Amino acid sequence: MDFELSILGSSSAVPTSFRNTTAQVLNAFGRFFLIDCGEGTQLQMRKYRIPYARINHIFISHLHGDHFFGLIGFISSLALQGRTTTLHIYAHKKLEDILNFQFEALNTKLPFDIVYHYLDSSKIEVIYEDKHICVTSFSLKHRDIPTSGFLFKEKEKPLNIIKELVDEYEIPIAQRVLIKQGADFTTKEGEIIPNRELTTKPKPPRSYAFCSDTAYTEKFLDVIKNVDLLYHEATHCNDNKDRAKQTYHSTAEQAATIAKKANVKKLIMGHFSTRYKNTNTHEKEAQAIFAESYAVKDGDTFKL
Amino acid sequence: MDFELSILGSSSAVPTSFRNTTAQVLNAFGRFFLIDCGEGTQLQMRKYRIPYARINHIFISHLHGDHFFGLIGFISSLALQGRTTTLHIYAHKKLEDILNFQFEALNTKLPFDIVYHYLDSSKIEVIYEDKHICVTSFSLKHRDIPTSGFLFKEKEKPLNIIKELVDEYEIPIAQRVLIKQGADFTTKEGEIIPNRELTTKPKPPRSYAFCSDTAYTEKFLDVIKNVDLLYHEATHCNDNKDRAKQTYHSTAEQAATIAKKANVKKLIMGHFSTRYKNTNTHEKEAQAIFAESYAVKDGDTFKL
Repeated sequence: MDFELSILGSSSAVPTSFRNTTAQVLNAFGRFFLIDCGEGTQLQMRKYRIPYARINHIFISHLHGDHFFGLIGFISSLALQGRTTTLHIYAHKKLEDILNFQFEALNTKLPFDIVYHYLDSSKIEVIYEDKHICVTSFSLKHRDIPTSGFLFKEKEKPLNIIKELVDEYEIPIAQRVLIKQGADFTTKEGEIIPNRELTTKPKPPRSYAFCSDTAYTEKFLDVIKNVDLLYHEATHCNDNKDRAKQTYHSTAEQAATIAKKANVKKLIMGHFSTRYKNTNTHEKEAQAIFAESYAVKDGDTFKL
Repeated sequence: MDFELSILGSSSAVPTSFRNTTAQVLNAFGRFFLIDCGEGTQLQMRKYRIPYARINHIFISHLHGDHFFGLIGFISSLALQGRTTTLHIYAHKKLEDILNFQFEALNTKLPFDIVYHYLDSSKIEVIYEDKHICVTSFSLKHRDIPTSGFLFKEKEKPLNIIKELVDEYEIPIAQRVLIKQGADFTTKEGEIIPNRELTTKPKPPRSYAFCSDTAYTEKFLDVIKNVDLLYHEATHCNDNKDRAKQTYHSTAEQAATIAKKANVKKLIMGHFSTRYKNTNTHEKEAQAIFAESYAVKDGDTFKL
């Protein structure tokens, strides 16, 4: 089952010729989650062949324009294409006001409902859950702007039952469900077969954490602990460490420090300041702290 | 002196992989006028190397998203780049409300002033004028949405005085100014030299008219009469003539009919419905009425 992240934008604040502002799509088992939506995100979705009609859940980290100015156009395009499926938006309350003000001013009648789920960036909370995946929001540190990070975590899968033994012991269907949950099995002859002989362990659940924008803070370390993939903004390199601090952004070295302390498998960095011509220094400075550190570019995909 | 139009978007309603939504830039003698500003216009400006910091005047035809959703992002980028020069926006009143609501919600303090010039789409009126150019707005016909077209017209230049004769008759500077305005010249000997012998005619003033979005209407024919270049929307071909009528858009044939009746030199068409894979039929149907009809694509430029 797919668990794939697509980077649609990796510039900070202002887009460049090569980098759009922040937007990502996580395809988790055919559910397409949109994370942030800078201007031009719908264009990037077309370019990178994201099946955007299948996006039902949108997560907006905070209300700076480079993270949501593409939303009104994207929603309008969905409406023009005749969408009827409900759209869920997870964001801070003001976003609803901003979108509604425009829909009312333009006399727009959407052919689908939007359900807003207000983020409370002072809390760690589960904001979405289905049988396969759980999304948790947590607080970042970005000036006085309520800003949330998101953890997408696959749920524990049941144990894999060994097919040959099902046949050998003639295990009934009802029993198989219990065995997958850890139960032992008693044969017709009264012999108890321990669960560990009947099953193999499932693949460990996969996880992705998104952290943008934020100054260096360890307050969410516990939440993102051991994730397979961490996106952490790295607006600056060490040459602008003071500027990063002033503007509540991070350096590549700080992103790598978080990755190391959280014991993640891989770090990807984005939200690069336009002052950098390339990301060689970001990678160099990050890798000195945490080897598995990479700078993303628009169009990159990461399969877990 | 330059008089050049750049097409930044030529799709209707929804962008495609090849066409952005409506936006154009007219460079008239180094003044860069932005006409409509669909989502992603700032990206197109970068792609096509428009010196966007030099845009001081923005004209928005009407408040459908595909004509202005790029404005908030463009203005925000100008702010982030430290612009201090006043920006003039010519639009219907509600645009000011929509932008201000967002700036207030986001607590944005722009480092430059915006002066709004409200369009009254029931009138033909001069909305901008300087020593070289005059911009007139006029009414289009687009549902019940106030929608304006724009005529950009170079002013009449003074007569060209023939240099050799200035030397021969030793014409003083004060007299030269009068001669350029049509006066005759009296030599020291009392001989009257008629103006027509002293001057040559200047190049005729150039003009560009922008008409999008609109159903077929002849109400602005007098305003756009004889322009060098006419942009008229041609959302549909004849196969969707009824749909064009219902949605207050035009067919290519209708655009060409307007071009012919207005006696323009050249017609360019855009705002194409995404249902058309190419614009061959648009051109064919238009050219049957008016030979100098062309379908634009993003990145096209037209020098006058």
